[in-house]
Amino acid sequence: MDEDRTKGKLFVISGPSGAGKGTIVSRVREDLGPNRAVLSISMTTRGPRPGEEDGKQYFFVTKEDFCKKIQEGGLLEYAEVYGNYYGTPRSYVMENIENGRDVILEIDIQGALNVKKAFPEGILIFVAPPSLSVLRDRLTGRNTDAEDVIRLRLSKAVSELSHIPAYDYLIINDVLEEAVKKTESIFISEHMRVSESRMGRLMAEYEGE
Amino acid sequence: MDEDRTKGKLFVISGPSGAGKGTIVSRVREDLGPNRAVLSISMTTRGPRPGEEDGKQYFFVTKEDFCKKIQEGGLLEYAEVYGNYYGTPRSYVMENIENGRDVILEIDIQGALNVKKAFPEGILIFVAPPSLSVLRDRLTGRNTDAEDVIRLRLSKAVSELSHIPAYDYLIINDVLEEAVKKTESIFISEHMRVSESRMGRLMAEYEGE
Repeated sequence: MDEDRTKGKLFVISGPSGAGKGTIVSRVREDLGPNRAVLSISMTTRGPRPGEEDGKQYFFVTKEDFCKKIQEGGLLEYAEVYGNYYGTPRSYVMENIENGRDVILEIDIQGALNVKKAFPEGILIFVAPPSLSVLRDRLTGRNTDAEDVIRLRLSKAVSELSHIPAYDYLIINDVLEEAVKKTESIFISEHMRVSESRMGRLMAEYEGE
Repeated sequence: MDEDRTKGKLFVISGPSGAGKGTIVSRVREDLGPNRAVLSISMTTRGPRPGEEDGKQYFFVTKEDFCKKIQEGGLLEYAEVYGNYYGTPRSYVMENIENGRDVILEIDIQGALNVKKAFPEGILIFVAPPSLSVLRDRLTGRNTDAEDVIRLRLSKAVSELSHIPAYDYLIINDVLEEAVKKTESIFISEHMRVSESRMGRLMAEYEGE
């Protein structure tokens, strides 16, 4: 057992569409090794689509169950999108953390700020493209968005800059390899922080002799 | 120019004799590459020994100059050892930081706590051996200390544990390779913190388009 990792941590990752969050997260998970970091699974009131399994892509629940979860304080954050509710179940996050696994939550700024309120130990990472022209190139290169959607995303990216000071870390994703290494260093170093539990274990080790 | 490193940071490293600070620091400096992290150079009132050069091992000054430095607030910390004064010149640290180089200061706990008071942005790292028996083996293996000196160092290591909570990070040096990697991750991730200057540069990049 790695003495620095008896408990996991919650890492919350935000950033504009096209910043490269998804790629960075999957590369970091791969490099850290199996069972070191899991993705958070959202709870939703929308019905499963073909191929989707409960507890895999989402936890599928009724509106009543979702409301009950909110009232119990069982969600770290939630939002309504087109009449369906989506939220982050506290229990899934806590169980993984208790078992020594980091949890990664890819979420928008509003959600990230709500998570920080509900769970202040969460570590907020903002991933930003180095410039708007790089972001424009990436969005254009994906060939998934119409020109007006891209324009919207670009102006949203600018307006979101003002929220970065609420985050703990800022990764500027210029060269992917470097951005991955920088993000990994956050996942490693945050486990090196002085904490009561690490101190307690070290003292027990010293005093047991 | 690396956009995350227009300014350097001050890393203060403490830990019991035999914890492996020196080895870790030289490995980290090597891995980070030339001119990324320099060692702090102390100012002292003791005379140079054969082979020692002013500005290399130490800045050699008179007692009068040292006192003047203290009065000007020109030292981040200082101490008297056997009638000679030793201190950390603020100007050497600041010049390197301004030029984008990290500064590493290997110093005892009292010095580290004084540095943190004089320069709160300094990042305090404590390096500890995983257990007293490992520390005993390392000290015995060096063949440099007599048995009673080793006993003294061991009991000092235990009493110093109580100061670790004043530090930002704790590296438990069990397997050297891992301890080096963990320490490096702190040097990298601390440059990823959200700061006014990084935000300013990113906004300029976005708004210039």
